[in-house]
This record gives sequence, C-alpha cells and structure tokens, in this order.
Amino acid sequence: MTESLDRDARHTARMQRKKALMDEKIAQAQEEYGLLLVLGGNGKGKSSSAFGMVARALGHGMKVGVVQFIKGGMPTGEEVFFRRFPDEVRYHVMGEGYTWDTQDRQRDIEKAQAAWAAARTLLDDDSIGLVVLDELNIALKHGYLDLQAVLADLAVRPLMQHVVVTGRGAQPEMIEAADTVTEMTLVKHAFKAGVKAQKGVEY
Amino acid sequence: MTESLDRDARHTARMQRKKALMDEKIAQAQEEYGLLLVLGGNGKGKSSSAFGMVARALGHGMKVGVVQFIKGGMPTGEEVFFRRFPDEVRYHVMGEGYTWDTQDRQRDIEKAQAAWAAARTLLDDDSIGLVVLDELNIALKHGYLDLQAVLADLAVRPLMQHVVVTGRGAQPEMIEAADTVTEMTLVKHAFKAGVKAQKGVEY
Repeated sequence: MTESLDRDARHTARMQRKKALMDEKIAQAQEEYGLLLVLGGNGKGKSSSAFGMVARALGHGMKVGVVQFIKGGMPTGEEVFFRRFPDEVRYHVMGEGYTWDTQDRQRDIEKAQAAWAAARTLLDDDSIGLVVLDELNIALKHGYLDLQAVLADLAVRPLMQHVVVTGRGAQPEMIEAADTVTEMTLVKHAFKAGVKAQKGVEY
Repeated sequence: MTESLDRDARHTARMQRKKALMDEKIAQAQEEYGLLLVLGGNGKGKSSSAFGMVARALGHGMKVGVVQFIKGGMPTGEEVFFRRFPDEVRYHVMGEGYTWDTQDRQRDIEKAQAAWAAARTLLDDDSIGLVVLDELNIALKHGYLDLQAVLADLAVRPLMQHVVVTGRGAQPEMIEAADTVTEMTLVKHAFKAGVKAQKGVEY
C-alpha cells in the first residue's frame, strides 16, 4: 500500500514535469530530468552505445546499474570490465549460474522475470543515476515479460534517473514512452558471412 | 625509406588478407583481422558506441588508444573515466591545453594535424588492439586533414588492430574503406529544444 502510494506519487511527479515542459512550449526550457533512451535497429552499436554511456556516467561520478537480458554464456568484455568496479556498477546478467536450454520457454520466462526483479531494485534506487536494460526489447518481443508492468515500473523510477533500453524490435509502447529513440542501421557489412564476430568490437 | 617499405609491406599484407577472404567467396571463412568500423548519422550513440567498444576491449585484456577530434573544453565523462587507466588506455584530445578560437581556421588545422600525429603513433603500435578516432569524420569534412593521407595511414596499421571512426558526414572514400558502417538515425527526440544535453548520457 505504501509502496503503491509512493509509486503513484513518483508517477505524478514525472508526468507533471513532462507536462510543465510541454506547456512552456519547451522553447528554452533547459529543464533536466532522467531520460528514457531506446536504442534499436539492426545495425551494430546498440549495446556498445549503452556501455559507452556507462563509462560516461562513471566519469561524472554517477552510480550505474546494468541488467543484461541475454542468455548468459561466456561473459562479455563489457561485463568483465565493469565488474571491476562493484562499488560503482551493479551488474546483473539474466540466467547467471544456469545452463540455458532454449527449448524450455517456461524457464526462459522465469529467468527473464528474475532479471526484471533485479531491474526493479535498480529502478527503485535513487542513488543510481543510470540504468542500462540491455536487450530488454528482445525479452519483451518474446513475451517473457509483461509490457505494461515494465512500462509502469519505468514510469515510477526516480525523477533524475536515466534509463537506456536496447535491442531490436522495440514495442510501439516503449517507443511512445521514450524521450529519445535511435535506430542503428547497417549501411555496409563487408564479408558479413566470412568474418566472425570479433572480440573487443562485437562482444 | 625503411618506414615506407614497412608501410608498403603492411598494406600488401592487409590487401592480401582481404582478397583471400573475397576469393574464398567468404562462405564460412571465419577469418579474423582488424576491422575498420565507421559510425555515422545524425542520431545519438556514435561516440558512446565507440566508448562501449573501449570497455569491451579492456575486458578482453586489450590495450586501447583514443583520439578525440573535438575542440577540448570541459573533459567529457568518458575522458575522465578512461584516463583512470593510463596503462591500458592512451587518451588524446585534440587541442589539449589550448583555448579554442573557432574563427582561426589555420589554428584548427594545426591542432587537427597534431591530433593526427598522435593517432599515427597508435596506428603504428601493434600492442594496441583498438583505436578510437572520435569525430574524425568531422575533421575530414572540414578539410583539416588530408583524406588520402589518413586513409593511407589506416591501411598500413597492424593487421589485427581494430579502428573505430565516428562522426557525421563520413566521406565516401572512408565508407568504401570500412568493413562495417553503421548509421545512427534519430527516430524520436522528445523536447528536443527544451531538454538540455545531459550529463552521463550525452557527454
């Protein structure tokens, strides 16, 4: 009950802030509030862009939370690197410690929901200035998570907290909720079939 | 003379490797070599994507070089952060220590050329696995650097070294030379005029 009131209050504050900006015709408003950024498309650079923002935020002394909605196998370079800074970066990977069986949809859903629970703790913590929800769009596209519940949790996050959501196939409601949407488009990919994914640039 | 021969030899090695891939019709080649990635377009995420790759590369134990072809003012978050690791990241910013006067084109050219000299030392060092040339496309677009000289230096870099070039308005020859080109397109930017550039996500 208290939690729910608190969420309502935060939602109202966010909506009021947005409305105030709109009402001013945003001419020279120069307001600040936490942005929801969506990075989609088929090109490279969605996740790496999010991780670049992590580096940026850390450079500004912010704390950062990361949840990777991907099936954990080998840790990626970004995971190895950012886990060096446990006081500054809270890092979660979906399905940690499990052997994935992609044939078991129910299990995928359970892991996605556990990952979302981790995301919620980050979205509920106003000491965290930036939250990266890497490949969340994929989890939503597969129906592993309830879109309306996810959007509701995003809407009640702390007013100054930035969130970056990545992944192909963003839902229209996610795009609607976002402040900024960038589409990464592949313009050229030489030897697409022949050059394997390479360490340092692709994972 | 020796340097020139060395450059020729490396250029030949790179071209042979590329040709070999082509000749195999790249079916399942699974070859590895250092990629030239170009990140362009008007959307967000070009530079941040490059800096995410820096984090990735560091996670894989690679050394990284960065040259930012922008006029230095306040250090960006990524600069503050990555300068924490001087043994792993060699970081250069164009025009360091200078007060910029954008009216002085000749001085801009000198600074860009000094930055390119720093880039060349990175492109000549095979202990560096990834080189980021942030906003190089802008310096080329303004004619601060000679495009053919830049492309020649890129072509003779160590075979396994990755290079990421960012910035709007990539020259056609740069796109032609690239292995991968991604265009960041702005799909939505709420309150574009009203919300100022924000710490942690935009700088």
